[in-house]
Amino acid sequence: MPATTLDQLRTPCLVLDAERMHHNIAVLRAQLQRLGAPLRAHVKTCKSLPVLLAMTGGERAPVTVSTLAEAEACFAHGFRDVLYAVGLAPNKLDAVQSLRARGCDLIVTVDSIDAARHVAARQLRIPAVIEIDSDGHRAGVRADAEALEPIANALARGGELRGVMTHAGASYECRGEAALVAMAERERAAVVAAADRLRRAGHACPIVSVGSTPTARFAQQLDGVTEVRAGVFVFADLVMAGLGVFGIDDVALSVLVSVIGHRDAPPRLLTDGGWMALSRDRGTADHAVDQHYGLVLDLDGRPCADLVVVGTNQEHGIIARRDGAPFDLARYPIGTLLRVLPNHACATAAQHDRYHVVRQQRRIEAVWPRWSGW
Amino acid sequence: MPATTLDQLRTPCLVLDAERMHHNIAVLRAQLQRLGAPLRAHVKTCKSLPVLLAMTGGERAPVTVSTLAEAEACFAHGFRDVLYAVGLAPNKLDAVQSLRARGCDLIVTVDSIDAARHVAARQLRIPAVIEIDSDGHRAGVRADAEALEPIANALARGGELRGVMTHAGASYECRGEAALVAMAERERAAVVAAADRLRRAGHACPIVSVGSTPTARFAQQLDGVTEVRAGVFVFADLVMAGLGVFGIDDVALSVLVSVIGHRDAPPRLLTDGGWMALSRDRGTADHAVDQHYGLVLDLDGRPCADLVVVGTNQEHGIIARRDGAPFDLARYPIGTLLRVLPNHACATAAQHDRYHVVRQQRRIEAVWPRWSGW
Repeated sequence: MPATTLDQLRTPCLVLDAERMHHNIAVLRAQLQRLGAPLRAHVKTCKSLPVLLAMTGGERAPVTVSTLAEAEACFAHGFRDVLYAVGLAPNKLDAVQSLRARGCDLIVTVDSIDAARHVAARQLRIPAVIEIDSDGHRAGVRADAEALEPIANALARGGELRGVMTHAGASYECRGEAALVAMAERERAAVVAAADRLRRAGHACPIVSVGSTPTARFAQQLDGVTEVRAGVFVFADLVMAGLGVFGIDDVALSVLVSVIGHRDAPPRLLTDGGWMALSRDRGTADHAVDQHYGLVLDLDGRPCADLVVVGTNQEHGIIARRDGAPFDLARYPIGTLLRVLPNHACATAAQHDRYHVVRQQRRIEAVWPRWSGW
Repeated sequence: MPATTLDQLRTPCLVLDAERMHHNIAVLRAQLQRLGAPLRAHVKTCKSLPVLLAMTGGERAPVTVSTLAEAEACFAHGFRDVLYAVGLAPNKLDAVQSLRARGCDLIVTVDSIDAARHVAARQLRIPAVIEIDSDGHRAGVRADAEALEPIANALARGGELRGVMTHAGASYECRGEAALVAMAERERAAVVAAADRLRRAGHACPIVSVGSTPTARFAQQLDGVTEVRAGVFVFADLVMAGLGVFGIDDVALSVLVSVIGHRDAPPRLLTDGGWMALSRDRGTADHAVDQHYGLVLDLDGRPCADLVVVGTNQEHGIIARRDGAPFDLARYPIGTLLRVLPNHACATAAQHDRYHVVRQQRRIEAVWPRWSGW
């Protein structure tokens, strides 16, 4: 008999608060509607059909993926407009070609002449966006780089230039609203400038794509942008809360764990939620509030005396007060169920193969499977 | 058509060097044979039947698991003597009972009177070992703790005391052979002392179990110990190499990645192997040689000018020289295949659902599935 309430589940497992998820989606969609830019939902956080459909309002709308496995899963479920937003490795071209041959309008990403040549060499008009570096964070060519037109020209010889995209990953390093607003504008300005250059050089550039949850949330205007990619907003997490992008009360994802032991000196709870269940992500380590490996709530989602997961082994979590002070271990007997909010929803969700979806805190209304692999 | 050589695979993916694996197994088995203690192979690293059978010499020998999902998988493949070596959460008792009812001699672990009472309350003679704290690292009761006999007595009222076990996790903090030798002896002495106490109090204590790969490798004698649990030795990893437990040339596991981009200033390679493929483990961060997120080898397993993975995002790896010096990016064009050795084999393997097993460096001789979940 499947579990109907959280206290019937075998721990550790992943819990998704459906009401919070729908709230977060509504917040972001309202923001993008105000700015006049549609969402190209990013699959990388949720990797799950029901969550994705909630993000798109039930439509088979354009989506973004971080792996070809996500692209294949989305296409199998009727999504046809799919942007694969990680620079293409040539060994993926066979799978790209196969998906496109079956009717998926899969768009790949390049940021070099070399990569563009690999795409064009197939002579199949495989569409690609050029990744623009808006923040010095990771990948992409700068909007003022000499290489921009040569990449477009290399693509045009057998592939198809579909547009430009950028990801302001440096938004995760921003502190304070003003910095996030400025980063969102920098992201927008870079990709629009790149599109303008390409159009002046005679290239059509229908897609002008920006995206990160922090910049999506803080953008003041998106003139010239045709779409916004965002994924982690759907669950929010402690990193987003630390940046002020969402509140801690918006975090929809948690890991349900059981107390399995106690230590007296210093006072600690041991749980069955280690790094296998939580991930090793320490994304709040350099935030004003360090959430260690996750913030601990009770079964109903209420805070527990500022308990955090201070350590993780493979299948053991170690919980203590953030300030190291003693606390009443007897309040948490063996078998007590706790919920741990994740630093990074993408990383924590990836450790699990399903979501236990709850409404009204404890009642399980569905189990949603996740996709994985590459 | 399945891939027959590594250069036909879609990246990122997990590669297992079968020759190195068999060498590591032979080394540990020879050591344990010399010490007269049998191996109770730990499933937590490999989570895969063919690897497990290689560890046990093809026999359905006693095994150790870190999750009930591993116990269920082992039992489904004919293993009957299974120690679940993580403190039991009461919500797992139904599954324990079900496995035992089907003929699996599943042994659970407790380290408190409370947990022992949960086990005993079923009145089904469910066997348990008492976890002994030999190093102040994490769980267990000390061998001289007042609670030891009361835990045994609580178990005896409806459960069954099967023995004692300990895990010297603090061995990972040891530096140098002398410290590892001392830690192995401390681990042995603690669990043997606990067994002696319990026997003097009238309890049979057939299992006296120690285990961690570093202490298994450096133990000088195991008098009074009935079995050794170890798992990570089968693959070895950069943490084990940093501790001097295995050499870097013994590391059997790597993640195959593709170069997808370049950065000039500072010089960087971007790959498609991010934390989703490598894990976020930074287990060598406090070692004499910090391997960052992993050491980079070429496709044939040869070192590449001391390149390491200096950063990871979800599906991007960032590679640079360890010393930050410039290097010749042109030697690594788009599509170049590289192999990344993991800090922590358990964590990296857990990000994947299969092993691509190679012999003679590039030839794939098998694909072995992995178990996952709880």
